[in-house]
Amino acid sequence: MAKQKKQPRPKAETPKGFRDYFGADVTERKAMLDKIAEVYHRYGFDPLESSAVETVEALGKFLPDVDRPNDGVFAWQEEDDGKWLALRYDMTAPLARVAAQYRNELPSPYRRYTMGPVWRNEKPGPGRFRQFYQCDADTVGAASVAADAEICAMLADTLEAVGIARGDYVVRVNNRKVLEGVLEAMGVTDPDQQTDVLRTIDKFDKVGEAGVRELLGKGRLDASGAYIDGVGLSDEQAEPVIAFLTSKGVNAGETLANLRAAVGQSGIGAEGVEDLETIATLLAAQGYGPDRIVIDPSVVRGLGYYTGPVYEAELTFEITDEKGRPRQFGSVAGGGRYDDLVKRFTGQAVPATGVSIGVDRLLAALRAKGQDQGTAQGPVVVTVMDRDRMADYQRMATDLRNAGIRAEVYLGNPKNFGNQLKYADKRQSPVAIIQGEDEAARGMVQIKDLVLGAQIAEEASLEEWKSQPAQREVPREDLVQEVRAILDRTP
Amino acid sequence: MAKQKKQPRPKAETPKGFRDYFGADVTERKAMLDKIAEVYHRYGFDPLESSAVETVEALGKFLPDVDRPNDGVFAWQEEDDGKWLALRYDMTAPLARVAAQYRNELPSPYRRYTMGPVWRNEKPGPGRFRQFYQCDADTVGAASVAADAEICAMLADTLEAVGIARGDYVVRVNNRKVLEGVLEAMGVTDPDQQTDVLRTIDKFDKVGEAGVRELLGKGRLDASGAYIDGVGLSDEQAEPVIAFLTSKGVNAGETLANLRAAVGQSGIGAEGVEDLETIATLLAAQGYGPDRIVIDPSVVRGLGYYTGPVYEAELTFEITDEKGRPRQFGSVAGGGRYDDLVKRFTGQAVPATGVSIGVDRLLAALRAKGQDQGTAQGPVVVTVMDRDRMADYQRMATDLRNAGIRAEVYLGNPKNFGNQLKYADKRQSPVAIIQGEDEAARGMVQIKDLVLGAQIAEEASLEEWKSQPAQREVPREDLVQEVRAILDRTP
Repeated sequence: MAKQKKQPRPKAETPKGFRDYFGADVTERKAMLDKIAEVYHRYGFDPLESSAVETVEALGKFLPDVDRPNDGVFAWQEEDDGKWLALRYDMTAPLARVAAQYRNELPSPYRRYTMGPVWRNEKPGPGRFRQFYQCDADTVGAASVAADAEICAMLADTLEAVGIARGDYVVRVNNRKVLEGVLEAMGVTDPDQQTDVLRTIDKFDKVGEAGVRELLGKGRLDASGAYIDGVGLSDEQAEPVIAFLTSKGVNAGETLANLRAAVGQSGIGAEGVEDLETIATLLAAQGYGPDRIVIDPSVVRGLGYYTGPVYEAELTFEITDEKGRPRQFGSVAGGGRYDDLVKRFTGQAVPATGVSIGVDRLLAALRAKGQDQGTAQGPVVVTVMDRDRMADYQRMATDLRNAGIRAEVYLGNPKNFGNQLKYADKRQSPVAIIQGEDEAARGMVQIKDLVLGAQIAEEASLEEWKSQPAQREVPREDLVQEVRAILDRTP
Repeated sequence: MAKQKKQPRPKAETPKGFRDYFGADVTERKAMLDKIAEVYHRYGFDPLESSAVETVEALGKFLPDVDRPNDGVFAWQEEDDGKWLALRYDMTAPLARVAAQYRNELPSPYRRYTMGPVWRNEKPGPGRFRQFYQCDADTVGAASVAADAEICAMLADTLEAVGIARGDYVVRVNNRKVLEGVLEAMGVTDPDQQTDVLRTIDKFDKVGEAGVRELLGKGRLDASGAYIDGVGLSDEQAEPVIAFLTSKGVNAGETLANLRAAVGQSGIGAEGVEDLETIATLLAAQGYGPDRIVIDPSVVRGLGYYTGPVYEAELTFEITDEKGRPRQFGSVAGGGRYDDLVKRFTGQAVPATGVSIGVDRLLAALRAKGQDQGTAQGPVVVTVMDRDRMADYQRMATDLRNAGIRAEVYLGNPKNFGNQLKYADKRQSPVAIIQGEDEAARGMVQIKDLVLGAQIAEEASLEEWKSQPAQREVPREDLVQEVRAILDRTP
């Protein structure tokens, strides 16, 4: 049992880019995820918890000509068979693996939700961590856009369930197929040029209409002064793309008419517009009006990645940014249809659509709106005046707990009573219980309302402290009901 | 967007030793952990969710003269600074790091609980996985054995909260210090020989009193035929150890008297017996009698690792093992006092005590007792008879969900009605809703009680199926109340 004393002491620190979550950080997130899970469950989605570790091969991050997986994941090599394993970087790649692996056992369509940490081997930055939560819901095996509409409705219900009021959010829906129709109508058929146009459109959020015009044409001087080459389209060629991006009308009918004009004779374009029309009709029939879910072709995020409908939930209320300026809270969830999910594994195309909620973003939004998701109340602290009567103090805590009240006995060194009060303060205790020899002899206890007494200096002496009006002496047998009365008063 | 077609398809498989959890596997575990967290919270414990990734240095698994960490953990090297990182292998090492890192911010004593996966880089076996859940509660900074007693009481409350009846479990308490007193009384002072005795005692569970006698003496032929060398003590020397292990009396008083005799004049031994007496007194005062928590020196697991009290929760009901023989379910949780927790980091000894619940073991026990922890009920499935009326079907599902009923529209290809019924079956749906053109024209829907109709062959034709008594036609506006009535009947 001899220790190696020569080694330097290890540093007690979280690895770079990782963090720990304490108390309310944990309970608030849990409360929010529980509410989300309840909505998902009601929609018929089943939970899935896949392993945190995947083969790099299954994740699809293994580059063909290097021995080491790329930098985006945390990976290591198995010693016995040389296989590379890695931590999942999102919830979609594991779903693809699961859908392929269990394709004969799972129901089809398979609706699943999942919540848990993912890991990214990236350079950490302020507020950017290498481990964070994702919360996804996907439907695998449903070709119908009714599946997309369902997820949009579920997303709206979810936001309301966690505490975002109707009117404070909007779910916007667009369709990659419509954009493809626009490209077809423009005569942009070269795949590389199509990719360039998609990449450009992805910047619409940042650079706006004029910026997209420049980037589709000759190019653009960006904010840093660098010149970004353009796609090289003529102004006339760029026009249908601009028409697509700005096609949102005063209602779904007008938007759809604008889109129909933009796609011209394109078959895929017409199909895309029809999809959006079906989604709008289904949602309207279920009571999800444009105040909650709206067809909006200016939603471009992920348009290059998804293969059909894309959707995004945005919070529309204003918050104040770091510099004190008001701005819209912005996006908290996004998703869409990606029909190549399982094909990598089986060769068979399987339609899929799904959404991912940014857990930390949504939690931040709830905090910004003053929505308390979990209880942060500390325990009632039974102080120790006389260490020989520990059993009496423990019995008080037991009585309180048996009545459902969070309670504990102070278990540090009881010598310095001030430390016990500091401790109760640090725990945000609502109430402290005190029983010295004299009270015990008379069958009484002191009950101190700490919320009421919060203004008293931490270092006050026991005598000063006991004289405060926030403290009352009550019979020992009334302990539970007296504490309950104080807790019921406390907000 | 061109794909590399030449690569072989990746295999869709969970890495060796890992597994996925579906549906009820997830909800049952969650329901159990929620109940545990509620008890921990009531005892004043705060949640902590530390990062899954730690520096190998902090984990304490880095061997001094090798470049690679040892095999027990999944580890990899950071590219920029060459540091080794690893997945946590338990919850205690991260707690040590957290307690040291945040020692100025955390309350002292710090009561924390944590629940989550840990990872072990071990050879997987049947039922042995390389990722599994742990659920721990620890008190850091409390030297008093009142902290140990508290955790034993909490453990008893926890078992009852999740559904283990009183009488079906017992928490056994022992103390490393008493054993040290026994060694002192025996005159075994050589540290290596002390370690040998501790190792031998750890086998008491397996080899019993006679086996321990042999192993403390000359040695023993084990079941495989191999000869295990003994510690080399004389029969007289071994006697106090045997007396210690078999000192349990008919009540705590008798057990403590036996222990006092076993430790003789040893100071540490007397201290250890006093600790156990204090624990017994505290627990008795709180109403935890020997039917729930008992002083039992035959508990030896971890006696070599812990520094003071050790405790273990055992389920005492019988189950049938793989071979059909009855046996006691056995241990589901264990813990104890380990006072060197934070010292590695700061040089200062910090007292700590804590328990770890074997999540999978306890879940298995609940299943063995027929305790249903989560709801596995499938959704009501609204079938699609006429794909042009998708909006009508979606509205039915919405109406049901708005009434709090789990419901979904079938979103696969609706052509083959039999597939829709097979799907409902796979989902364990309690009810299917059917509305063809004729019903729609009359404002009616068919409600099929699938629990009642479970005996009907899956391949029955629609007409046969519709003629069953488990199916009724009701007005569309009564849909929700009729479904509710069926669900209320279903157990």
